[in-house]
Amino acid sequence: MNMDWTPGQAAGNDEVVIAHGGGGEQTRRLIAEHVLPKLGNALLAPLMDSAVLTVAAGRIAFTTDSFVVQPLVFPGGDIGRLAVCGTVNDLAVMGAVPQALSLALVLEEGLPFRMLDQVVDSIAAAAREAGVVVATGDTKVIERHRGDGMIITTAGIGVMREGMELSPRRIEPGDRVIVTGRIADHGLAVMSAREGLAFETELLSDVAPLGGLVEAICRAGADLKFMRDPTRGGLAGVVADLADDTGLSIELDEAAIPLSRAARHTAELLGLDPLSIANEGKVVAVAPAADADRLIDACRSHPLGREAAVIGRFTEAQPALVELITRSGGRRVVQRPYGEELPRIC
Amino acid sequence: MNMDWTPGQAAGNDEVVIAHGGGGEQTRRLIAEHVLPKLGNALLAPLMDSAVLTVAAGRIAFTTDSFVVQPLVFPGGDIGRLAVCGTVNDLAVMGAVPQALSLALVLEEGLPFRMLDQVVDSIAAAAREAGVVVATGDTKVIERHRGDGMIITTAGIGVMREGMELSPRRIEPGDRVIVTGRIADHGLAVMSAREGLAFETELLSDVAPLGGLVEAICRAGADLKFMRDPTRGGLAGVVADLADDTGLSIELDEAAIPLSRAARHTAELLGLDPLSIANEGKVVAVAPAADADRLIDACRSHPLGREAAVIGRFTEAQPALVELITRSGGRRVVQRPYGEELPRIC
Repeated sequence: MNMDWTPGQAAGNDEVVIAHGGGGEQTRRLIAEHVLPKLGNALLAPLMDSAVLTVAAGRIAFTTDSFVVQPLVFPGGDIGRLAVCGTVNDLAVMGAVPQALSLALVLEEGLPFRMLDQVVDSIAAAAREAGVVVATGDTKVIERHRGDGMIITTAGIGVMREGMELSPRRIEPGDRVIVTGRIADHGLAVMSAREGLAFETELLSDVAPLGGLVEAICRAGADLKFMRDPTRGGLAGVVADLADDTGLSIELDEAAIPLSRAARHTAELLGLDPLSIANEGKVVAVAPAADADRLIDACRSHPLGREAAVIGRFTEAQPALVELITRSGGRRVVQRPYGEELPRIC
Repeated sequence: MNMDWTPGQAAGNDEVVIAHGGGGEQTRRLIAEHVLPKLGNALLAPLMDSAVLTVAAGRIAFTTDSFVVQPLVFPGGDIGRLAVCGTVNDLAVMGAVPQALSLALVLEEGLPFRMLDQVVDSIAAAAREAGVVVATGDTKVIERHRGDGMIITTAGIGVMREGMELSPRRIEPGDRVIVTGRIADHGLAVMSAREGLAFETELLSDVAPLGGLVEAICRAGADLKFMRDPTRGGLAGVVADLADDTGLSIELDEAAIPLSRAARHTAELLGLDPLSIANEGKVVAVAPAADADRLIDACRSHPLGREAAVIGRFTEAQPALVELITRSGGRRVVQRPYGEELPRIC
């Protein structure tokens, strides 16, 4: 059972070969057959060295992420949906309206075309859902390694909303921390798929484009001070950064943090802290206590924010740190995760 | 001699470990110690989810490329310089003035920090040379594979110059094809380094940011119709595309195409066609015959265009194809390279 590539197996018809990355006729065919029919739009179609976009004068947001998730397909999503949503969400939480994405594919020799097609279909669907175009792209092929299959890097451009001033520096004692729904589902769903855990069907990644939910949040009439999507590092990473950046302490209420029974069970089984696990469809927001209710109402008016909750508040306690008030009434300090609890989760 | 990673070897001090990609404290330290001191600027420093840029109303160019070159350091450059120049040049040949880059690093476990530092230094130097800022970035870590070390994906934003109308559709019979200097040096330099060829020191990659040269070209007062940088697929790829896109034939004069003695010798030795080999610091431009001299003068006024030459012309011959008039007076058809003559060259 030799799993390595041999020339006889490739046949060039059903999987990616090195020649697809050469920039010649084979690359042209790969793009023409497997990418353009799914993603084609007026910006991408000319296949020039760059796409040309028209923008109004003002501020634009610009972001990038590489995605190395394993496996490529997981309960609730795949690397393609993740690559679109991850970048769109980084724009959205800055207060920008996402406009255009770039898409750089690094394919591994031996990747079946049916997997490429599935991922590109997923990219196309997620881009439609998010209201963005894939404006420009690139494709490279690397030799067979260990079955990575593909690495995707997206960059995104969005137009900043006027009149928003999001900055941790505006946060004051008494301000509330809000999360828009259940935490930890993405990381646990990927991990369950990778480990072949029996209960994997109960857990689905929350990967979703957050532009619509953020739009609802921005229109709530609240004095919104901060938004971030708690991806790698999870909720713990975001609140640890907030304590550092504001010089204030944060008190989190464990009982208020939305977490499914399946997620709690899985995290316990794996010995992981749900607070440190990646999410791909949630927003952490900060606003004054007086605006918390209208912000929660705005979130709940959107399908992705039905379980939004106030989970904590800023205090003047020094030194500045994050404390979790546990269900049993105890207190523990929440720290930024040190390293990689769940490698290749996004 | 076990070359695989073992926990005892890592020590976390001199090489990248998986935990550096977790998005937690270790990631923060990696960025703080190895990236920000070299690349830090007002846009990157806040380390928010996106950078925010102010743009004038108008058209912006947007492009991306992944770089998988092996080895990471080659005669005349490295993957960092390549990642900056490749993206900046894709913007420049569209007639845009490059403004900002995103930088996504996928690091392999075991990458020595001294290599990371060398590459990030090189990125910083190339960005300064090109007049762009690295505005936003991302870092992921993957398990030890086969010694890739790192994959870099850059995306770029540029502001389109007003009044330029670059399109193959404007090309007419009689128009001239110009190249700004010697071809094939990049691909051959990388290949020589990889193969350990004895003559490698003679060949240096041409990798360079082309914004300044393109600026000189745009100011020449010529009716410029097309520009492209002949990277993967080489000069042959660009002219094959031009024949396809214009429906016209192209006659290339082999004797006029700048090519160093070392490059010709190396290409012969490797059995490669110099026309198909990647360049990373050249422009192919098209303009009317009447404007060719002023365009050549403009190129030669810039250090990167000293050896610019008219190398061919468009004709009405049908069917539309590219013919090379060889040094010996023969003719041969130039085709788009089929696959990958030189894998992982950029």
